[in-house]
Amino acid sequence: MDPTGLILERVSVPAVYGGGPDKVVEAIASIIEAVRNSLPDLTLCGVGIGIPGFIDRETGVVVGSANLPGFLGFPIRDAFYKHLGTRIVLENDANAAALGEMWLGAGRDVKELILLTLGTGIGGGIVVGGEVLAGAQGMAGEIGHMTVIPDGNPCGCGNCGCLEKHASATAIAGMGRMMQLGTDITAAGVHKLATEGNPSAILIFESVGKALGIALANLINLFNFPLYLLSGGPLPAWDFFAPAMFAEIRKRSLTYNRVGARIEKALLGADAGLFGAAYLPLQRGIYTEAAACR
Amino acid sequence: MDPTGLILERVSVPAVYGGGPDKVVEAIASIIEAVRNSLPDLTLCGVGIGIPGFIDRETGVVVGSANLPGFLGFPIRDAFYKHLGTRIVLENDANAAALGEMWLGAGRDVKELILLTLGTGIGGGIVVGGEVLAGAQGMAGEIGHMTVIPDGNPCGCGNCGCLEKHASATAIAGMGRMMQLGTDITAAGVHKLATEGNPSAILIFESVGKALGIALANLINLFNFPLYLLSGGPLPAWDFFAPAMFAEIRKRSLTYNRVGARIEKALLGADAGLFGAAYLPLQRGIYTEAAACR
Repeated sequence: MDPTGLILERVSVPAVYGGGPDKVVEAIASIIEAVRNSLPDLTLCGVGIGIPGFIDRETGVVVGSANLPGFLGFPIRDAFYKHLGTRIVLENDANAAALGEMWLGAGRDVKELILLTLGTGIGGGIVVGGEVLAGAQGMAGEIGHMTVIPDGNPCGCGNCGCLEKHASATAIAGMGRMMQLGTDITAAGVHKLATEGNPSAILIFESVGKALGIALANLINLFNFPLYLLSGGPLPAWDFFAPAMFAEIRKRSLTYNRVGARIEKALLGADAGLFGAAYLPLQRGIYTEAAACR
Repeated sequence: MDPTGLILERVSVPAVYGGGPDKVVEAIASIIEAVRNSLPDLTLCGVGIGIPGFIDRETGVVVGSANLPGFLGFPIRDAFYKHLGTRIVLENDANAAALGEMWLGAGRDVKELILLTLGTGIGGGIVVGGEVLAGAQGMAGEIGHMTVIPDGNPCGCGNCGCLEKHASATAIAGMGRMMQLGTDITAAGVHKLATEGNPSAILIFESVGKALGIALANLINLFNFPLYLLSGGPLPAWDFFAPAMFAEIRKRSLTYNRVGARIEKALLGADAGLFGAAYLPLQRGIYTEAAACR
């Protein structure tokens, strides 16, 4: 990507974890090296990497991830640096997505926003003053595990009633199965049934909207940010969950009722994290002018 | 206060609102002027003012307050400047208290913390990177109105189950009345009964601890800050509510269970807001060295 966010090249390969993290890094680095060589007029400023897990920002080590077999404790930043010799910046993937939406997506006009990505779980990213809110160990933004219903569905994290157990794509499919809409029903399948007028499917999205509304009301009361974005697979069902969501927000947020807040669809889809990751080396300020990267 | 936080003079007077906001400001400004004149060797760097309400930070106008009769829309910053001719910095009082705890209280070793003050309601202040998290309209930190029990006690804000309806001093007294501990029982009275072994009083503080635990688990998951502080009248009852609070946090926060967080009593009591307000003119950086204020 160039410093304006123009995509110069896109390469996607399946990850092969069997050989260990060094091999995964080597495979990715060799692709980056090939792209670098194919663009001889340009200089590689840096590499931003979105990671589905927690990173120690001081050391560049993966300190937690359910989705990267073998990477726990792995010094991923140093491993990439060894191959590429350029600025390597790591960020949690949900945080990177929030940053991407601020840079080039639905949040281009603000410096403070929160992004919720509805997927298998619910990922969250919080941007304050133009930068990711990281927290002491880079673990801020776990919005998917906000308690919205204290005695609600049990969650793998040990809690009951986490937002992601009531509003993720997985939760929508689960509710569909419980409401006997089909043993292998998906969130998209529940949406399709809702468009056909199925009352159970419609009620499922009302429930999703209520859960999202409780969480968003809490966020608005806590942050008073101008913008809250939703993304992910269930977004096409917006018209089915948004009315209940907004009703709940109006009921529960004095801040919303007093000064409002924009609650909108994100624009960059699954690419938000790519844009945010690419933005990281620019933002972290070794290159004070974008032109210096050329 | 001097730039190290040493109190040079303390004056407290009742506010008289009958003459309008101009008269209130005039009375306070004349006291500040008298203190200034009594310390001829020192220069007044600035005046920080904690306000129980919302302030427009651009204009220095009070845009919301239930507790300052006649001040809605009043340009309080300009009014003080007219009298004193020095840097005037306004802040919400709960935010100022959080900043005070960071400067000279229980948060001296951190730059990111959240303070909850349990009183008539529950005030909240969030400090990120050494500064108050203000939000778009200076209304961030309304932690007292976080939904902890979706179908809980109705709140004046229009919501049900706000934290402050389940854990403020007012809520403790209200639960005491409902549990027939006395028609004019106070939070301190419920605490006294708990120390005497009264089972209803003990259960009230368990309920308070649960509500605080839900809220703190949400905050820890969202912010991953190193420190969360509690202050206010019910603090002496810590031993009665803290066990249930920590149990709830352990149940509900994956972040707490993974990396921990300190949840402690604030140190500055009712003076936290004074210290925070005094810190504001120093922090906002016209005087790069504290010595320049002398």
